[in-house]
Amino acid sequence: MAYQELRQNPITGNWVIIAEDRSKRPGVLQINGKVQLPAYDKDCVFCPGNEDKTPPEILAYRNGDVWWARTIPNKFPALSLEARIDGQPQIIREGMFVRMPGYGVHEVIIETPSHNQDIYDRELGQVREMLWMYRDRLTTYKNEEELENILIFKNKGDTAAASLYHPHSQLTASPVHMQRLDLEIEGSQRYFLSENFMGKKEQCGYCDMINQEIEIKDKFGVTSSVNRLIAENPYSIAFLPFASAFPFETWIMPKNHRSDYTLISPEEATQLAIITKEVFEKLHRALPNFDYNMILHTTPLNAGIQEYYHWHFEIIPKLTKIGGFELGSGIFINIVAPEKAAKFMNTGLDY
Amino acid sequence: MAYQELRQNPITGNWVIIAEDRSKRPGVLQINGKVQLPAYDKDCVFCPGNEDKTPPEILAYRNGDVWWARTIPNKFPALSLEARIDGQPQIIREGMFVRMPGYGVHEVIIETPSHNQDIYDRELGQVREMLWMYRDRLTTYKNEEELENILIFKNKGDTAAASLYHPHSQLTASPVHMQRLDLEIEGSQRYFLSENFMGKKEQCGYCDMINQEIEIKDKFGVTSSVNRLIAENPYSIAFLPFASAFPFETWIMPKNHRSDYTLISPEEATQLAIITKEVFEKLHRALPNFDYNMILHTTPLNAGIQEYYHWHFEIIPKLTKIGGFELGSGIFINIVAPEKAAKFMNTGLDY
Repeated sequence: MAYQELRQNPITGNWVIIAEDRSKRPGVLQINGKVQLPAYDKDCVFCPGNEDKTPPEILAYRNGDVWWARTIPNKFPALSLEARIDGQPQIIREGMFVRMPGYGVHEVIIETPSHNQDIYDRELGQVREMLWMYRDRLTTYKNEEELENILIFKNKGDTAAASLYHPHSQLTASPVHMQRLDLEIEGSQRYFLSENFMGKKEQCGYCDMINQEIEIKDKFGVTSSVNRLIAENPYSIAFLPFASAFPFETWIMPKNHRSDYTLISPEEATQLAIITKEVFEKLHRALPNFDYNMILHTTPLNAGIQEYYHWHFEIIPKLTKIGGFELGSGIFINIVAPEKAAKFMNTGLDY
Repeated sequence: MAYQELRQNPITGNWVIIAEDRSKRPGVLQINGKVQLPAYDKDCVFCPGNEDKTPPEILAYRNGDVWWARTIPNKFPALSLEARIDGQPQIIREGMFVRMPGYGVHEVIIETPSHNQDIYDRELGQVREMLWMYRDRLTTYKNEEELENILIFKNKGDTAAASLYHPHSQLTASPVHMQRLDLEIEGSQRYFLSENFMGKKEQCGYCDMINQEIEIKDKFGVTSSVNRLIAENPYSIAFLPFASAFPFETWIMPKNHRSDYTLISPEEATQLAIITKEVFEKLHRALPNFDYNMILHTTPLNAGIQEYYHWHFEIIPKLTKIGGFELGSGIFINIVAPEKAAKFMNTGLDY
């Protein structure tokens, strides 16, 4: 019988099912992203030379006409700062229903002038500038009192819901709670206030997780069948989480406790760029030219430094489809155990 | 500027964004399900004549060799009753991590002998038998003490994560909490214990919702641009929910308060079959041969009759992709307002 296991996310309390599909070993997983792109496309609104075809620039890293990262408003925003009446978000009640004009922020970050370079084949400096742009844009909204939650995410490829090919990320901020982020924040608060598995209180769950992943790696080795660690440097760590919801789901986070991404130092940003590039190289070797979503979870706006939360990137390769079970239960079925995916990424060896 | 609105689900408290994509009016939405199937496929393990190619039948509605609905164990289960040690689900702790062998139930319900009849082009009696089979299978596990949550769902088509074409549903039950169902149960408890918009306590949120949808329809008319009601009969009602997460998302539920699907009466089942067929006919006219997920949410096992919960079907046509925003925030962006989808379903008129 195939391997089936229920695993609980130690932060949120949510469960996932690891149910091996033996017809889909890591080496033969269906990979969706196969589009080959040119380095430059004169019809792409994000390519150099077409700057006047985008809404007016909000921020750019540039030297005269030459730029290496730009932020612009989303031309088709899901949320907008204009949706405000007398400077206030407007709550409308109709019987039991509550609605609000779509007040918020929706920006696009053009990560690179190159039309075809994904993170794994960019220069390190270019990766660092993207990460620094994230910091700059988050900082802008940090004290915006009418906004609550902020999210940076990236969709790469058709199957990951990208509508444009040129590498870009998006930033959204809104006055309403983002339930997925709430679940993490509340879960990490609960973890902090309870005794952890060592009987200690006031521990950050993510710090505990990092320590346990390092311990397993040290005890059994990075190529062992229980290791989930992928990369490590003085400031950063990357691993496949124990309760991965998706095959090859990978998290990157600061090794030391950090709740607020905007406080990243220049040296930390360099180390983060190094590990991000390394992780994407390893993912790309395992899943050539894969489509993916990448998400940055950081502390809510106006929340200040928190002892219980820990910012992190979640990278979710798009390899499987979401069906009625996932939509109806909230439980994801993951057909590749994270230890197996990690071993494949670390050794290239299938099982 | 395009229409953008934040809407709150009155039961769960979760938000969705209604952000019209004017390039994707209802009449030109991308519809994924275009596979034309034969009525019979000799190589299909679910077609009549191949009964010996499935695991042994658990329950069938049959007359001698002729059957019209069958339930079998899933051949590749995500959860299994065998994953138990000495009759108990086994919890394994490793530092901060908790895992459990994949204990639970995973069944397949073959809805019809026909290889190609989706719900909209089946005989009414055949639809009713599917719904009655749901009742029978749920009843079996109703008092199973080691199981907690139960879910019936259906994936139709490739993009909805179906791996076999022959019309089938699935039943899963597990000892762990299904977070999506919990959210509804807890939300409906909270609603019940709080004052509703009329200042009344101890109301079922779903009953309130039904009343408000009927009121809007009565006041403005079924073809108006604010109506969300699609179908109605003495026992059942179908509408597109106010805070729809997906374009054309449709709910079917009993008109009177019912928390436990297994208590459905024969007459109620007939009326449910009538409305289910009607809803699928309307969806199929709007979205020819569409792929979809269908989910039945009923009260958890061992919970008994509840004043605050209301069973319902959720039908989710597969028309859009899930991206980093949805995965990272838990907020879904719906590009067709439910009022517009309802109007299109009721009148065939695009906007």
